[in-house]
Amino acid sequence: MKAYKSLSREELQTLLVELESAFEDAKGKGLNLNMARGKPSAAQLDMCMPLLSQIDEASDCISEGVDCRNYGEVTGIAEAKKLMGDMIGVPAENVIVCGNASLPIMYDTISRSVTFGVNGSTPWCKLDKVKFLCPVPGYDRHFAITELFGIEMINIPMTQSGPDMELVKQYVENDPAVKGIWCVPKYSNPQGITYSDDTVRAFAALKPAAEDFRIFWDNAYAVHDLYEDTKDTLLEIFSECKKRGNENIVYEFCSTSKVTFAGAGIAAVASSKENLKWFEKTMTIQTIGYDKLNMLRHVRYFKDINGIYEQMKKHADFLRPKFEAVLQVFDTELSGLEIGSWIRPHGGYFISFDAMEGCAKEIVAKCKEAGVTLTGAGATFPYKKDPKDSNIRIAPSFPTPEEMVEAANIFVLCVKLVSVKKLLGLF
Amino acid sequence: MKAYKSLSREELQTLLVELESAFEDAKGKGLNLNMARGKPSAAQLDMCMPLLSQIDEASDCISEGVDCRNYGEVTGIAEAKKLMGDMIGVPAENVIVCGNASLPIMYDTISRSVTFGVNGSTPWCKLDKVKFLCPVPGYDRHFAITELFGIEMINIPMTQSGPDMELVKQYVENDPAVKGIWCVPKYSNPQGITYSDDTVRAFAALKPAAEDFRIFWDNAYAVHDLYEDTKDTLLEIFSECKKRGNENIVYEFCSTSKVTFAGAGIAAVASSKENLKWFEKTMTIQTIGYDKLNMLRHVRYFKDINGIYEQMKKHADFLRPKFEAVLQVFDTELSGLEIGSWIRPHGGYFISFDAMEGCAKEIVAKCKEAGVTLTGAGATFPYKKDPKDSNIRIAPSFPTPEEMVEAANIFVLCVKLVSVKKLLGLF
Repeated sequence: MKAYKSLSREELQTLLVELESAFEDAKGKGLNLNMARGKPSAAQLDMCMPLLSQIDEASDCISEGVDCRNYGEVTGIAEAKKLMGDMIGVPAENVIVCGNASLPIMYDTISRSVTFGVNGSTPWCKLDKVKFLCPVPGYDRHFAITELFGIEMINIPMTQSGPDMELVKQYVENDPAVKGIWCVPKYSNPQGITYSDDTVRAFAALKPAAEDFRIFWDNAYAVHDLYEDTKDTLLEIFSECKKRGNENIVYEFCSTSKVTFAGAGIAAVASSKENLKWFEKTMTIQTIGYDKLNMLRHVRYFKDINGIYEQMKKHADFLRPKFEAVLQVFDTELSGLEIGSWIRPHGGYFISFDAMEGCAKEIVAKCKEAGVTLTGAGATFPYKKDPKDSNIRIAPSFPTPEEMVEAANIFVLCVKLVSVKKLLGLF
Repeated sequence: MKAYKSLSREELQTLLVELESAFEDAKGKGLNLNMARGKPSAAQLDMCMPLLSQIDEASDCISEGVDCRNYGEVTGIAEAKKLMGDMIGVPAENVIVCGNASLPIMYDTISRSVTFGVNGSTPWCKLDKVKFLCPVPGYDRHFAITELFGIEMINIPMTQSGPDMELVKQYVENDPAVKGIWCVPKYSNPQGITYSDDTVRAFAALKPAAEDFRIFWDNAYAVHDLYEDTKDTLLEIFSECKKRGNENIVYEFCSTSKVTFAGAGIAAVASSKENLKWFEKTMTIQTIGYDKLNMLRHVRYFKDINGIYEQMKKHADFLRPKFEAVLQVFDTELSGLEIGSWIRPHGGYFISFDAMEGCAKEIVAKCKEAGVTLTGAGATFPYKKDPKDSNIRIAPSFPTPEEMVEAANIFVLCVKLVSVKKLLGLF
């Protein structure tokens, strides 16, 4: 197919008429589809139902002598530390298992740093300026936390191998106001990029200007491969940091939200003993203990890390057709038109689409008009501001493959329509 | 029996020899008993086991159209709001249901006020001084939270009808630095006192000097009656506040930690819509939702508030003998000696004992020596400082009635021994 930008004005105008007509037809269908929500479908959740029947008798509630029904064990039960540690390749002794999701752990970590500081440093609320680096596009809920706490966010462009590490190094090693960076290192949200070994090593080797700088390593998709033969592998950062005597630099987060139940999983933070000790200091005041019965359900259901791997193979079989349905439509309908680019992810939960500059908002609006809800344009950037108004996050996990095809067709139609309008200078 | 203080020095010395000898005998038994922990026994937890088998099939996971396995419903499911609201007599629309315990909700509420303020007021971290009123004796974990955040705590003496409301009113209505008061209004921890109607009305009628003053109403023992015929009733504060156009003044907390599972219950906060809206503003950044499956387990198990009442009757039958075992020993062994006083609670989880001034620490130490662990003396006061060194909290819930008798006998022996020594000026 011919690139739109190489078309004459007349050709574009003819195309516009055709696309407008197709768009009106599409609107007439009265669709109601949603590609916005990075949440599992009911059918996917069904696969984990036996997890809920793991604990029936009182004798089932004991984990290595601990009665999980009762108070105590503020850092979680040992069996759950092992399971979650294995998921990300970190020893159990460096793991604290918390509640039903990792987001509150990240929120608490920021909140704790703001109010109490980091391992004895000045609380961030006492500083004139605190900055965070934000690889973009990235995860909106990370940015929402730092924004809420009044932390200034700095965009760091993503490359195919992770964040631009030259830029990261420059900021981190020269500006003591830079206290952290948000990372989704494997199958990044939304691009599905896995950081290269060099990128991970560059992170581990950082010599921050601020003693309280930390890498917020949100390993949300550690086990979320879509393909057996093209699994991405992420270098384990904690041991890389340790090798360099730099083990306090990283907080790693993970959960089973997208392994078992989005609303009722278990979540963990992994870090150096010194960092965890600092966490515990406030955690023991904040709670008498997280839900240990839910930890135990997970441990009993999976038995060990191999149980998680097996589960994720089933997930992959289930999710793959949804991803491929979308990518197939993109390939067929958009290849060669040069009005957008996308990445074919090997895992994770999203497909990232980059439209022509200045078109993302309009595409999302048009899709909405035709009954297809997308994540708001800009959501993948701090302050919801995509400087190029280009990135759109597509979440294929919730609808069926058939719905995904239907939604993707509307999407590509809107991409074409908006791009032609843009090229014609109509908005 | 004769009051110790009326004994001659010689009589006291004779008594001392007898008590020392009895103490040595007791030590020889090598006991290992614990009256420190306000936690349920395994046998009590066993009573709730069917709760864990409420959700087996996918169809069980739906609550009024909401799939509780998935993301969403940040304020909790409607059915759980109703159940928790009924437990404390507040409409469901004024309730947010959160995680597995109320302590983290209280912590978050303080943390939020410190960092973000209260309904738009100046964040407490920006103020020179923030003070909290603390009825004493009280709950150590409340005091630990306020201490952690650097909030100055002011002791308010408890009376038989609740905190000294003259003093409360004086502080709250004149000092704008006073931002809150910790209350356990029913079967207070540790005394088991229920606030009188007049006390509740006085709270509801407060006209605080600070617009961001709030009553932290920890209704932890709302349904924890020990006796059918002598149930205490607590006036419902929220509607009292409403009547006076003062509904923003109170945050009420409750949980099922001591109804179902101490480690895996559900917890809620109730307040005015304006207050809850302020909570939600940060809550939606902090979490995508609390564990809704656990909410649903509770709803399905209890069906409605009557299910909770039935459960609590069983608890009462189970706990009553433990309380009575202790009180029986106190009555028999200490009546008339005038070396200590105690309250016979109608519910709750504790018995509060007041020793002669300056004796509590020594009694706790002596008990420890004889193999009986008690809550540290002073724990029931801010900064762990009991100005009279008099109060000791006894927790009868965990041991068996037989163990409680044994432990109580050691306790009264130590009370006698330490009191005699005190009267003889030996320490």
